[in-house]
Amino acid sequence: MALLNLEKLKKIKLQANSVVNRVIDQHVNLAVTGLSRSGKTAFITSFVNQLINESNESKLAFFDVVHQDRFIAAKRVPQKHAHIPRFDYEGAINSLEQTEPSWPEPTAGISEIRLAIRYRLKDSMLRYIDEMGTLYVDITDYPGEWLLDLPLLNQTFEEWSEQMCQLLQQPPRQEHAQAFLTKIQQLDPFQSADEELLKNLAEEYTQLLHYFREQLGLSVIQPGRFILPGELANAPILQFFPYLNFTNIDVNAYQNAPDDSLIGMLRSRFVEYKERVVKKFYQQHFLRFDRQIVLADCLSPLNKGPDSFADLQLAIKLILESYNYGKSSLLSRLFAPKIDKLLFAATKADHVTPEQHQHLASLLNQLVHQSQKQLSFDGLEMETLAIAGVKATSSGKTQYQGKTLPVIKGIKLSDQTPLTLFPGLVPKILPDNDYWQNSPFNFIEFAPQLKTNHCQPLPHIRMDQVLQFLLGDKLK
Amino acid sequence: MALLNLEKLKKIKLQANSVVNRVIDQHVNLAVTGLSRSGKTAFITSFVNQLINESNESKLAFFDVVHQDRFIAAKRVPQKHAHIPRFDYEGAINSLEQTEPSWPEPTAGISEIRLAIRYRLKDSMLRYIDEMGTLYVDITDYPGEWLLDLPLLNQTFEEWSEQMCQLLQQPPRQEHAQAFLTKIQQLDPFQSADEELLKNLAEEYTQLLHYFREQLGLSVIQPGRFILPGELANAPILQFFPYLNFTNIDVNAYQNAPDDSLIGMLRSRFVEYKERVVKKFYQQHFLRFDRQIVLADCLSPLNKGPDSFADLQLAIKLILESYNYGKSSLLSRLFAPKIDKLLFAATKADHVTPEQHQHLASLLNQLVHQSQKQLSFDGLEMETLAIAGVKATSSGKTQYQGKTLPVIKGIKLSDQTPLTLFPGLVPKILPDNDYWQNSPFNFIEFAPQLKTNHCQPLPHIRMDQVLQFLLGDKLK
Repeated sequence: MALLNLEKLKKIKLQANSVVNRVIDQHVNLAVTGLSRSGKTAFITSFVNQLINESNESKLAFFDVVHQDRFIAAKRVPQKHAHIPRFDYEGAINSLEQTEPSWPEPTAGISEIRLAIRYRLKDSMLRYIDEMGTLYVDITDYPGEWLLDLPLLNQTFEEWSEQMCQLLQQPPRQEHAQAFLTKIQQLDPFQSADEELLKNLAEEYTQLLHYFREQLGLSVIQPGRFILPGELANAPILQFFPYLNFTNIDVNAYQNAPDDSLIGMLRSRFVEYKERVVKKFYQQHFLRFDRQIVLADCLSPLNKGPDSFADLQLAIKLILESYNYGKSSLLSRLFAPKIDKLLFAATKADHVTPEQHQHLASLLNQLVHQSQKQLSFDGLEMETLAIAGVKATSSGKTQYQGKTLPVIKGIKLSDQTPLTLFPGLVPKILPDNDYWQNSPFNFIEFAPQLKTNHCQPLPHIRMDQVLQFLLGDKLK
Repeated sequence: MALLNLEKLKKIKLQANSVVNRVIDQHVNLAVTGLSRSGKTAFITSFVNQLINESNESKLAFFDVVHQDRFIAAKRVPQKHAHIPRFDYEGAINSLEQTEPSWPEPTAGISEIRLAIRYRLKDSMLRYIDEMGTLYVDITDYPGEWLLDLPLLNQTFEEWSEQMCQLLQQPPRQEHAQAFLTKIQQLDPFQSADEELLKNLAEEYTQLLHYFREQLGLSVIQPGRFILPGELANAPILQFFPYLNFTNIDVNAYQNAPDDSLIGMLRSRFVEYKERVVKKFYQQHFLRFDRQIVLADCLSPLNKGPDSFADLQLAIKLILESYNYGKSSLLSRLFAPKIDKLLFAATKADHVTPEQHQHLASLLNQLVHQSQKQLSFDGLEMETLAIAGVKATSSGKTQYQGKTLPVIKGIKLSDQTPLTLFPGLVPKILPDNDYWQNSPFNFIEFAPQLKTNHCQPLPHIRMDQVLQFLLGDKLK
């Protein structure tokens, strides 16, 4: 009997060894995008930084694999697609960690970075052995405008033109677009197309898009590729613009307009843009994403007023169309997407006092759910969080007229001076007229904090919850 | 009888009308490329300008369709591929025709322009009727470096590295490349690949390529995409370089080196470059070209000396591999190209005196034929010409020590002062040591001439022969 038991034990040990050597490999494609100035580069930098610098001093309490002490290590490994630009993690970290820290340069276009996370499995087959796993995480960073282009696939040139012209004729765009609109109004749509004229007007339209994005902080920028043309710079496919006067032109004449008439050329370039730019992005990139993070800065629009906020609302509505998985949806018909988790994150949570975070998350949640009602997201798990990829402030209390007020402290970005303030109340629900009339919110941008210890991960708000939502189920 | 004849006449007239209305459409794809600073933009601008401004004052005596008075008109029409940048003809013409004329900005990457040429057929079916034809000419402009990349497809990473390192270890490159070569020599090829290191060394190698091209005027720049990365900027596919020490490393160890070792990563990126960059260009563009013009400035290398001239010679040899149509050639095996006419043009003929033009053409011809011997060009018609797309000088005579000397006059490019000179003798055959020791050639660059009448086409040398060779047979 004793001999038999010994044999049995040997056998178990043998099995056990083969189990220890069996490393379970998994793989997840994370896509990260953001609306106008949402801090996408800082977010990705922090995401990577939290993982590769994970240590006893890390603050990832809500990331189960860390909390349960099963996280071993994470490192950068060569990315999957050699023809996609590398996400410049080193450059971004250098900006944040230099003696006078600055926000990293925003990325242009698409970029990639890959991590390998080594961890101990939670439910090992044999309890007395540590079984290990590796999760490969491919992060793809791409401009939010590319996602905003999807609805174009469902639109004719007339429909798109009408939607765009409506935007251009309303505040805050209207006063800047007036001169352009007047020029369009004076065109004879059936005249023979003059390519130089189209080129010049398309340039003027592109300048407007840049102004809306960079000066007004708006998010609905269509066509998205106009502001980041890459190899399509000066190509006719980016030389069109919305036509204003559809109500005044004969439907039949429009339908029969040849491709070399002005209106015909605008239409054919719009069609080619949808095929060669919009569809191509979905086919080459979007289809391989497993999970998506959409970053939005809700605070600047709150500060700027109702027009700016309405624009954010429209942008979120347009973005959600990319995740409308109902059977009749455009996306389901064209492609077969497979995203199973979608995270909307309100960034710059460190720019408000901590008791406002819940309101910020709730506000974004309302923005998302308002659009979501009309859509069907079968099998898609959604979450909204208020976060800061890189925390630039510290929070505290101050006495004001006998009351205790919460405040944040940091270095003001515009003039690099120390500042302590209570920025105001974030509405818990979509703001109404009353809110706008009292305009109780004062958004000030802060510079990143000086780090005293470079071995520590970057300070953050709720990046652990981000990691848990996006990766937690893969690290069991 | 009279009645019958009348009927017959009516019938003939009817037939005749339908013949007049039958316009014969033909189409030709012209590809234009050039070696380092050969004046490609000025050439294309002049090519278009000669055709669209064809008039009684045009100087196209050797272009049969003009000489035979069958040319009706040419105009620009929308290009075929909306996703390819437009060739900026307007911008180039504005540079050349402004009050202080300047050479147009060089184009970056690929661009297109399309012309429609209307002409009368030479052999009309019915002699008393003008039968018309339209020839559509698509001109594609692309960097010469892309053509120089073809031979990579036939090379392993070791072979390419050896060829490149040989170049780097010789003048004129050697003195500039020494620091880089030393760094490469110190690398352990089997160490685990550090992507940042590869990136930094690839950047250093790219800087060298830029220096060779822009400062030394060299043509053999490989890999060509490094100096014009477009959307591949910062992508790993452009982050490799030739490895120096193949003689010192073990063949087996090299063959078995994993992709994440330094040498393995260099090799795999080289392979990916061939697949994704070199092959892609051939598949997407090269295969649809019918005719090719290769422009080369032979005068600057003559001026700079034997190293520079040898580089031009090597560049032409590498380029000819793209037109080696022998059955066993790389190109025939990979693709099925269809180019039937290949023109090598020695540009800047206006920078030497007229009696040297024949020598210039003969010199280029020797450069081409020397390589051509080893290749097979079945069904490919080749021509060499000495030309000036835009003529910047006028020629005359001067008296010097009792002799009559030919001279050219123009505005010196460097300081915009008037200059009259005899630049020297162009060798009729490949220059030997004697030639280099006497260094009888003094190449000075000229600015474009001020045009007095903007309706006239640009002044040129032998653009009519260029047009006749490339388009003549299509305009019969």
